[in-house]
Amino acid sequence: MPDYQAPLRDMRFVMEELLDYPAHYARLPGGEEATPDVVAAILEEGGRFAREVLLPLNQSGDREGCLLEGGEVKTPRGFKAAYRQYVEGGWPGLAASPDHGGQGLPPSLSMVLSEMICSANLAWGMYPGLSHGAADALRHHGTAEQQATYLTKLVEGTWTGTMCLTEPHCGTDLGLIKTRAVPRDDGSYDVTGTKIFISAGEHDLAENIVHLVLAKLPDAPEGSRGISLFVVPKYLPEHLTGEQGEPGARNGVVCGSLEHKMGIHGNATCVMNFDGARGFLVGRPHKGLACMFTMMNAARIGVGIQGLGLAEASFQNALAYARDRLQMRSLDGAKAPDKPADPIIVHPDVRRMLLTQKAFAEGGRMLVLYTAQLVDVVEHGEDVAERERADTLLGLLTPIVKAFLTEVGFEATNEGVQVFGGHGFIQEWGMEQLVRDARITRLYEGTTGIQALDLLGRKVLMSQGETLKAFTREIHKFCQAEQSTPGMAEFVRPLAKLNAEWGELTMGLGMKAMNDRDEVGAASVDYLMYAGYVTLAYLFARAARQARSALEAGTGEAAFYRTKIDTARFYFERLLPRTRGHKQAIEAGGDSLMAISAEDFGLGFEI
Amino acid sequence: MPDYQAPLRDMRFVMEELLDYPAHYARLPGGEEATPDVVAAILEEGGRFAREVLLPLNQSGDREGCLLEGGEVKTPRGFKAAYRQYVEGGWPGLAASPDHGGQGLPPSLSMVLSEMICSANLAWGMYPGLSHGAADALRHHGTAEQQATYLTKLVEGTWTGTMCLTEPHCGTDLGLIKTRAVPRDDGSYDVTGTKIFISAGEHDLAENIVHLVLAKLPDAPEGSRGISLFVVPKYLPEHLTGEQGEPGARNGVVCGSLEHKMGIHGNATCVMNFDGARGFLVGRPHKGLACMFTMMNAARIGVGIQGLGLAEASFQNALAYARDRLQMRSLDGAKAPDKPADPIIVHPDVRRMLLTQKAFAEGGRMLVLYTAQLVDVVEHGEDVAERERADTLLGLLTPIVKAFLTEVGFEATNEGVQVFGGHGFIQEWGMEQLVRDARITRLYEGTTGIQALDLLGRKVLMSQGETLKAFTREIHKFCQAEQSTPGMAEFVRPLAKLNAEWGELTMGLGMKAMNDRDEVGAASVDYLMYAGYVTLAYLFARAARQARSALEAGTGEAAFYRTKIDTARFYFERLLPRTRGHKQAIEAGGDSLMAISAEDFGLGFEI
Repeated sequence: MPDYQAPLRDMRFVMEELLDYPAHYARLPGGEEATPDVVAAILEEGGRFAREVLLPLNQSGDREGCLLEGGEVKTPRGFKAAYRQYVEGGWPGLAASPDHGGQGLPPSLSMVLSEMICSANLAWGMYPGLSHGAADALRHHGTAEQQATYLTKLVEGTWTGTMCLTEPHCGTDLGLIKTRAVPRDDGSYDVTGTKIFISAGEHDLAENIVHLVLAKLPDAPEGSRGISLFVVPKYLPEHLTGEQGEPGARNGVVCGSLEHKMGIHGNATCVMNFDGARGFLVGRPHKGLACMFTMMNAARIGVGIQGLGLAEASFQNALAYARDRLQMRSLDGAKAPDKPADPIIVHPDVRRMLLTQKAFAEGGRMLVLYTAQLVDVVEHGEDVAERERADTLLGLLTPIVKAFLTEVGFEATNEGVQVFGGHGFIQEWGMEQLVRDARITRLYEGTTGIQALDLLGRKVLMSQGETLKAFTREIHKFCQAEQSTPGMAEFVRPLAKLNAEWGELTMGLGMKAMNDRDEVGAASVDYLMYAGYVTLAYLFARAARQARSALEAGTGEAAFYRTKIDTARFYFERLLPRTRGHKQAIEAGGDSLMAISAEDFGLGFEI
Repeated sequence: MPDYQAPLRDMRFVMEELLDYPAHYARLPGGEEATPDVVAAILEEGGRFAREVLLPLNQSGDREGCLLEGGEVKTPRGFKAAYRQYVEGGWPGLAASPDHGGQGLPPSLSMVLSEMICSANLAWGMYPGLSHGAADALRHHGTAEQQATYLTKLVEGTWTGTMCLTEPHCGTDLGLIKTRAVPRDDGSYDVTGTKIFISAGEHDLAENIVHLVLAKLPDAPEGSRGISLFVVPKYLPEHLTGEQGEPGARNGVVCGSLEHKMGIHGNATCVMNFDGARGFLVGRPHKGLACMFTMMNAARIGVGIQGLGLAEASFQNALAYARDRLQMRSLDGAKAPDKPADPIIVHPDVRRMLLTQKAFAEGGRMLVLYTAQLVDVVEHGEDVAERERADTLLGLLTPIVKAFLTEVGFEATNEGVQVFGGHGFIQEWGMEQLVRDARITRLYEGTTGIQALDLLGRKVLMSQGETLKAFTREIHKFCQAEQSTPGMAEFVRPLAKLNAEWGELTMGLGMKAMNDRDEVGAASVDYLMYAGYVTLAYLFARAARQARSALEAGTGEAAFYRTKIDTARFYFERLLPRTRGHKQAIEAGGDSLMAISAEDFGLGFEI
């Protein structure tokens, strides 16, 4: 069975040493309580929960899947008990406001925990995971009464939340939704329609489920400007029905079927039928999409963290296998002459695969924790200008976190299978499950293609490149400051070059896009990957700088810091060159994509 | 349900127009009967069989899997009947010698058919697929009696074959095998040991199963020089046991269990226990590995064809979906204003994904059919010098066909899922099955890493680059001949540059490897991918040249040829740039791979 240990040492490196979280928390309103000791204790406890409670349910959950019987979903054995422990441990409300019963710790902390949960058991993690988004939407857009009714329960964890967006005929294009909300005399609405791909839409973990549903009012304008957001609980709270005891009356929303999926079998992906279900408007009429974006942005970062978590899990197990499995001799001469063969970790190509996983996991962690500080500031910062700056940069990085970390996370889990050879394909070892689970992360909450359009079209070009400049300026400053630091040239020089190139590439694209809007879509995914590689290069350069300082200052952990520099060097030498291909593909433009007509595409096989 | 049509038009283009198969067959001993009409009839019939018989069993076979009861394996519903049709149609012996009951057609023809079978139902195709290898080994190394006993049955298809190499503790490193063969008085052997990952090791499709087994004789030298090959039938033929009727007595080889796998569920992947099973030596004692290579080289090309087949299947279905699914408007203005949204094929990024699939499928097909001509010559050529030339080039291309086509085949099936968005993750649509099925192709018959070592270490560097030069000279000649051809510069210029660069890269690696053998392993996978991209570029340049000629000559199929040139252009502009990253990674060398000790690798998470 796969093992997993929370990478506490690396997390400490990134938080305490690289990004100075102690200072960040100290100046963050509400962050004072997140002292290094408190943080360490929470991460240790979270790691234990992930390893001891969630991990043992990961493979069994995959095998068992969920069962739908009479509208009720039975989750895999042990999931419910684990959820109870999660609630009893106070985890759901870790970063929620004390006003709603939370512990008021910074959001970034719950993001670190989320990595651990995703590493140990992604399918389980998707049950509480979506409550955060629902809570966010209600916190930002719900009435005081809605907050009192639903938010406290979500924070407590006794109820969970969903996001009901997608319909059979539309996912990306929410302007097409058909679900309708008809006003009732009492100010509530009758919601009717079918939603698909609803993660945790129905289950047996919690007393009640709070659906956040996009629907159209009778007088709604066409398209995406006519969408409203509703809260539709599975059970109507008693004060809304006049009954006693909670939860109250069953609402008209039922799970019609479960999807049979490639992975995350332990999570119930539901078709939800709303049949005159009683719902309550959240936010203003027709402004639902804006409200939903509150949920979506958090969820997108959450999915990026999933990619990171799976990469880490795969790396840890591939490493154990590579140290253990004896096969062939090192080309350089036997390394374990007393054994029938050398452990496969002696082979350079096996090391290339392990290092690829390691670099993506550690690089991904830096990116997530860098982004998490922005989330903290946006949520809790008091200085308006600082909050706005953080929000702008967060907007830029969100699609990168989501798409880049899931793309390379998928690659990392595949390298894990590859290290295992044929055994990687066998379910028992657990490596192929990580691939299947990772596969969804490139799709949900907006595919990589959608994230790439968001990045290049909305975030970069719509701001005339200003948003990007805020980030490349930061990289530029770092390069300036470190250009003469001994030993840093190998990182700073290529980074500075790439950083300048990034700006030029963007400018070139902006010019092209003015003449032909399709150039944006033609370049977008290559651009996003390019951006991801450069961003990780920046963070690895900083990590190398930090490690070098620690070594110079003298440390009892010299091996840890040397390894960090070695990992950075591997990243720069062996992964960062992929930017060359992306750059050239971007510069080639979109003509070759648009040349073939839809009909002619199939001329090789269609008769 | 996914659809599939054999890409007959594209196959005809590659065979008749690009590679002049008619002339190739005309001068190939035994090839005269493969006239264009005969070939066309066979391909059409094969396409029908794949689509009408095999395709409908692909998803059900995946859902049902195989069952092991009392040592007997029950294959999914319909598999047995399909196999009967396959045998009745005379397919197993298509390319086998008439001496053994075959039709004596060229091997290349059965490779084209193999692509269709893999597209329609890979799991099913693995049952007859392995018989080819077993038959090859017996044809080359078996005694006349062994051929009479087993080969005719394999050619007929009433018996199937397996390759029993891997053991629990060794796959790549066959020198470690523990299976023993003890001589009996009658000249046969008692074979005892456990083999794992035996595809089609046990099933209910055929009367008998002929296992080709690697084992060690009592006096065997250590390691891979001490391995012998045995034929071990499930049922002993009656003339070997004195019984009448066939098959005769049950031999001591049984399926101990079935593996639970990520994909190819319809194929029985068996643990085979040999317990004093009666076996017969094939070839000379201790020379089994060489005999097995006969099977393995064919099998490796076969696996490359699987990558191609799955890419094609995924492409066809993604294309249909992209034409059908309405979502968002073209950034360039509505393309289907009468509909609620445009079909997603209008979006440049969706086209990028479809074209990636298309280019890898069509490029892979050219590579396979180019290689298949070499197989024809090696098997049937009469001119010794020509045969040797073909064999050398075949040796160079085999690891590229195997590893490159499975790597990009996996990518193509993943693009197929991506085009479907969230629906791609749902089993019902069939796209995720193609990914799961494709995942094994990067592993079995030698992982990508093993193929890469074979290419760079054995084939390229061991021959001092001579083997490679034979190929780059051919590319060079093409570039020379076409450098002034109107409209060809966009292909010939980058190809000529890459071709020269390939030689330089290789020379540089050869120098480095003399000082440090680990440099070979450090560069190998990047080198293989580089080689694959350049090889496909050569073939696409030729395809563009051919298409241009057809257009100039005047044709009723102008759209087909224009599309071919557009696909080649897409390949050159958007995929070939990936060589830049591979080149830079190769040139960075292996130091960054070897720096971290096995212990220090885990310092981020190990306490």
